[in-house]
Amino acid sequence: MSDLPNGFHGRVTNLRIKDDTDDLTLIHSEQPCTVAAVFTQSRFCGPSVTLSRHHAADHSARAMVVLSKNANVANGPQGDADAHEVTALVAALLGCDASDVLIASTGVIGRPYPMDRIRQGLQSLNPYTPEADLIDLARGIMTTDTVPKVARASIGNTAASVMGIAKGVGMIEPDMATMIAVILTDAEVAADALDATFRRVVNRTFNCVSVDTDTSTSDTAVIFASGAKGPAPSDDFDAALLSVCTDLAKQIAADGEGAETLIEVVVDTARDDDQAHRVAKSIVNSPLVKTAVHGADPNWGRVAMAVGKTNEPDIDQDRVVIRFGDREVYPIRLDDAGLAQLSEYLRGDEVVIHVSLGIAQGHARVWGCDLTDGYVRINADYTT
Amino acid sequence: MSDLPNGFHGRVTNLRIKDDTDDLTLIHSEQPCTVAAVFTQSRFCGPSVTLSRHHAADHSARAMVVLSKNANVANGPQGDADAHEVTALVAALLGCDASDVLIASTGVIGRPYPMDRIRQGLQSLNPYTPEADLIDLARGIMTTDTVPKVARASIGNTAASVMGIAKGVGMIEPDMATMIAVILTDAEVAADALDATFRRVVNRTFNCVSVDTDTSTSDTAVIFASGAKGPAPSDDFDAALLSVCTDLAKQIAADGEGAETLIEVVVDTARDDDQAHRVAKSIVNSPLVKTAVHGADPNWGRVAMAVGKTNEPDIDQDRVVIRFGDREVYPIRLDDAGLAQLSEYLRGDEVVIHVSLGIAQGHARVWGCDLTDGYVRINADYTT
Repeated sequence: MSDLPNGFHGRVTNLRIKDDTDDLTLIHSEQPCTVAAVFTQSRFCGPSVTLSRHHAADHSARAMVVLSKNANVANGPQGDADAHEVTALVAALLGCDASDVLIASTGVIGRPYPMDRIRQGLQSLNPYTPEADLIDLARGIMTTDTVPKVARASIGNTAASVMGIAKGVGMIEPDMATMIAVILTDAEVAADALDATFRRVVNRTFNCVSVDTDTSTSDTAVIFASGAKGPAPSDDFDAALLSVCTDLAKQIAADGEGAETLIEVVVDTARDDDQAHRVAKSIVNSPLVKTAVHGADPNWGRVAMAVGKTNEPDIDQDRVVIRFGDREVYPIRLDDAGLAQLSEYLRGDEVVIHVSLGIAQGHARVWGCDLTDGYVRINADYTT
Repeated sequence: MSDLPNGFHGRVTNLRIKDDTDDLTLIHSEQPCTVAAVFTQSRFCGPSVTLSRHHAADHSARAMVVLSKNANVANGPQGDADAHEVTALVAALLGCDASDVLIASTGVIGRPYPMDRIRQGLQSLNPYTPEADLIDLARGIMTTDTVPKVARASIGNTAASVMGIAKGVGMIEPDMATMIAVILTDAEVAADALDATFRRVVNRTFNCVSVDTDTSTSDTAVIFASGAKGPAPSDDFDAALLSVCTDLAKQIAADGEGAETLIEVVVDTARDDDQAHRVAKSIVNSPLVKTAVHGADPNWGRVAMAVGKTNEPDIDQDRVVIRFGDREVYPIRLDDAGLAQLSEYLRGDEVVIHVSLGIAQGHARVWGCDLTDGYVRINADYTT
């Protein structure tokens, strides 16, 4: 018995795609599930994305297979054929239609799948393979992640729950969908409602994360609803889903490549939520803000710079208020003692930058991380 | 006698704003000059920008004063008053109107000018102070620049020339104007023509540089035309100006904070020049492309990622061609020997990434640099 929501099973194995950590993860449901899915908007998306987009179009699926350490992107017709074969092999294993199998991939771009090992590995998975717990599934989809990312929430007072796994530490600035996240629930949710709720929640969670402004070719977020525990009040379901996705989004930001500090940016009193989001992203993506946090350098002027560069005509520097945590740094002036305290605050594991624009009621919250020597080292030799 | 174009004089001095390198630079002309100027679009721009924008509005000026190591940004009414006083003091020194003096500032944000030292320093400058050469002026405006940046070109077969100085190594992604660049010419150019030509050239040069996506609060580019050598054929003048500004733009990119490699990105066969520019900027700003270049990692898939994330609907990955220098890497496949040669190419001082989109005739060329541990170290403790 695994610890997944009712009706779901998971298995992981190692195909030696890159090393000896698990790299094939299979999640399947006893019954057809209602599904909703969002994918990268990249023009260089891979066949895993195009095929899964196609297979999820009817809002029904049975299984998801994730291959990590190889993205199968920019591989031409061979890449398409390989992705089709993987979903067909999984379908044969489970006795379902290939169109009920979703696939996601993450890792290096431009290298073909090692198909011999994938075929062997899938043959080795069968009903007698030990079942995996949620944390094993989260570990199976990791690339340069340093920790597996799982989150759970029960749905109000019902017996049903929402659980999710996610990965993603670099090439992370989701545009519409994001990284790889798989959410499971045993609540019964209608396809339309599931799709609408999931898109709204993804926009407020995964789409609010940026590690490095680079949008992956392979971002995929999927929710499976097995219905095993029957319907749940929609408010309770929404709250549980938001809780799980927020939790995973913050875990992704905190585990950003080389990251030592989680940065949360809150922008309020903007013209509207979109403007707040643009300003918040400008701050959380600024290499100069990120390096200042890394160095615990109380150089708050870089936040002013990042607000200013959005070039939004209704932002007036005379109405802007900038805070770190609860501490105002602009327009009031910090003395040397105040700057020393700010530096101390920046040494914490989590830094909150709060900017009020003083225009109207728009609000946004986004997450990122500091920029460190570690990020440079990790990415200067990822394929080698 | 300095080596400036006819009719111009320059002087530099050290006010100890930060250290003992020159930090006050004064350039002045014997006669009123025709000027054109472009400035940062930042909503947090400083009084140096707002005042100079005002003083340059009549396309006439006599002098430019640059204070380095302190940006005088986000300093409220005191900052405004200080900027006014500096231009008034320079005007008194030169016997001209304060409205004929432009001012630029660069350095830390949110610290007031040390006005006592600035007043003393300006008093010490007088007609008997030794004149500075172009390279001294370039050195006087440096902050974290490691080398002074100068460029010269003669104008066709005329006796006139164009010379320029520039600074800027971090917080560099000019949006409209850029960093600090001062261009001098002794050709005679009408105000309208000077303004139009300068804006066009700035767009093709300084606005094509990005070190770190962060747009400064203080970016300023100005050209002074003294007219001392009379009119020049406009084609010759345009070519000389483009040559000087291109040279300075590449020097800025190559001296990016922590940079070890100049990256030039050329995008052609785009829908139009704007699309080409967006795609080129996406590549040159990608932290993953920048770190791959730094590590000489032949991970060309990151260029595909950066093209893809622009999410331009008419980009079709089946028509895209990616080259490093003259070497095609996509869609043809490099074997191991090819990847090793690509890695060797990436170890050079200058890397050219060439992307053809296969749509129409749009073209752009931009410059940036690799992302290194040095960038992180420089910016993790800039104010401390």
